Amino acid sequence: MSKQSIIAVDAMGGDYGAKVVIPGLAVALKRQPELKFLLFGDEKVVNPLLAEYGEVAAASKFVHTDIAIKMDEKPSQAVRRGRHGASMWLAIQAVKNNEAAVAISAGNTGALMFMAKIAFRTMKGISRPAMTAIWPTSRGQSIVLDVGANVGADARQLVEFAIMGEDMARAIFGIEKPTVGLLNVGVEEIKGIEYVKEAGRMLRKSNLPIEYVGFVEGTDIGKGTVDVVVTEGFTGNIALKTAEGTARQIAAYMKEAIEGSFISKIGYMLSKPAFRIVRNRLDPRNNNGGVLLGLNGLVVKSHGGTDEIGFASAVGVASNMAKSKLVEKIAADIINLEIPDLEENNKNAS
Amino acid sequence: MSKQSIIAVDAMGGDYGAKVVIPGLAVALKRQPELKFLLFGDEKVVNPLLAEYGEVAAASKFVHTDIAIKMDEKPSQAVRRGRHGASMWLAIQAVKNNEAAVAISAGNTGALMFMAKIAFRTMKGISRPAMTAIWPTSRGQSIVLDVGANVGADARQLVEFAIMGEDMARAIFGIEKPTVGLLNVGVEEIKGIEYVKEAGRMLRKSNLPIEYVGFVEGTDIGKGTVDVVVTEGFTGNIALKTAEGTARQIAAYMKEAIEGSFISKIGYMLSKPAFRIVRNRLDPRNNNGGVLLGLNGLVVKSHGGTDEIGFASAVGVASNMAKSKLVEKIAADIINLEIPDLEENNKNAS
Repeated sequence: MSKQSIIAVDAMGGDYGAKVVIPGLAVALKRQPELKFLLFGDEKVVNPLLAEYGEVAAASKFVHTDIAIKMDEKPSQAVRRGRHGASMWLAIQAVKNNEAAVAISAGNTGALMFMAKIAFRTMKGISRPAMTAIWPTSRGQSIVLDVGANVGADARQLVEFAIMGEDMARAIFGIEKPTVGLLNVGVEEIKGIEYVKEAGRMLRKSNLPIEYVGFVEGTDIGKGTVDVVVTEGFTGNIALKTAEGTARQIAAYMKEAIEGSFISKIGYMLSKPAFRIVRNRLDPRNNNGGVLLGLNGLVVKSHGGTDEIGFASAVGVASNMAKSKLVEKIAADIINLEIPDLEENNKNAS
Repeated sequence: MSKQSIIAVDAMGGDYGAKVVIPGLAVALKRQPELKFLLFGDEKVVNPLLAEYGEVAAASKFVHTDIAIKMDEKPSQAVRRGRHGASMWLAIQAVKNNEAAVAISAGNTGALMFMAKIAFRTMKGISRPAMTAIWPTSRGQSIVLDVGANVGADARQLVEFAIMGEDMARAIFGIEKPTVGLLNVGVEEIKGIEYVKEAGRMLRKSNLPIEYVGFVEGTDIGKGTVDVVVTEGFTGNIALKTAEGTARQIAAYMKEAIEGSFISKIGYMLSKPAFRIVRNRLDPRNNNGGVLLGLNGLVVKSHGGTDEIGFASAVGVASNMAKSKLVEKIAADIINLEIPDLEENNKNAS
């Protein structure tokens, strides 16, 4: 097994640290027994867990450190402390030093993004990184980006997001030609905010190997109208959290309504398998794993509050990323973006 | 009954025109028998319906016009044609001429907003109007604005939205001190986009009679954390449509899962009343009626594709608006916004 498929793991990240990470790796190994890990964490916590999960120990190389980044630590402070060898920092450095293909952490998002930016630098041709979300849809799953790595974007950045998202969709969904849409307030070309319209024109004009279908609306995300939904980080983050909130709200409504009647309770008992299927499809644990795209190195962010099932899903995303050579593919596609008429376009816009 | 409680109705608006509007008024009258209408529409279509719905005829004064704005007409063109006496135009003019307190239309949104702006002008102290949505939450209902009257906003505009939304919440929910939150990507003061943070500082500093609670996230909308969620129109529109899409997606998941098993189907039959309660709470028809706030006159927009139940809900909103003297209240509150330290703030920002 080449180093290029090893996953560097911050064993101390997340609300529960190694207690979720190590069992999560065990679940991931059940799904993909060929996985190999490079673990960074505190031996006092990690060693007993590795003793318990022998299969994880067998698939891992473990490196001790007693520095862990706290969930509420400010990114700048986290970086200062991190440089002395925090588990998160070391996992990222392992990728930088080519000892692993991808780093994964359930820790402090701001700290992780900041450390990754310092270690990997933004890719040539990419203005800023984007965080992805895997969104369950009526058709399957879509990728939405940016969901909050940055707030604000311009047309060129949205085009970069489109390229990165498309390459990622190909890598993790195995679709030959993923479809891409720009999130807007209407599907007509004249609608919406200026930089989104400009990005639409750039994507239409470009000779990028991108299946750009045009504008999509909020309702299209859940429908799965496109494989990749491109938006600026502020709106993307709010859309993502609004959808989560709506799902929770409906579950709460359902619970309240069912508990209001004895017959409904019986009905619920009988329909339980159906409810389980729905819960499963919407379960954030099955859609866990955000990728920070646009850096010269791959980092996967797991939700901090997830359990071992959720962490295993994020490991699955990391594993797909590791196999995908995504950074190289994005780099190649970004070169294609530097075509003359778009350059002119940019000049005219400025 | 004073003219100040009469509702001016565009009887030709919406996907189904008078066929939904007149029965909708009948439903509204069942809910509030004291309602009075000033109807504008084509006698060929409206008269037979008024004959059928005698209670609507009895509560209405009808004015004939054979000009109707099409759903796909460009706003500028709609205004040109509308001036010659379109039903939508006449309903707005009736409010302008003080013959009615509020206008309602299920017609072309862009045309309605444009006509309303021309007729009423933006209120002194308000930079631009905002469209509201009534959002069903776990606690009841909240108002979200702007959901797409405009795209883009600055800090001062968000503060104006907060004032207008708060006055509207008081008017339609009857809450003494509605709570207001600014939609952002995190609840911490340092998070988010600059103009949102600036609006937060302005609301904290201001001596406005507003119960400002700080930033809220996408998940907070469905929770009903605050009575009024303030955001810029692009993000608000996308959040609203994303929530609608998520609700539809979950319903589709549920249907598919239930139909997959005979036992689940039986269970569903038994739980049907519970499902009906949930469907009812989420039913867009029960939350229909957007208000265009910030103009010197009130306009309520009904969804174009709704049925008579939905149109009646929008009439209910219009009726509350008519009673509320909302324009006067917003005008009074906006004067309070012109306080010295905020003015200074604006200067520093520019």
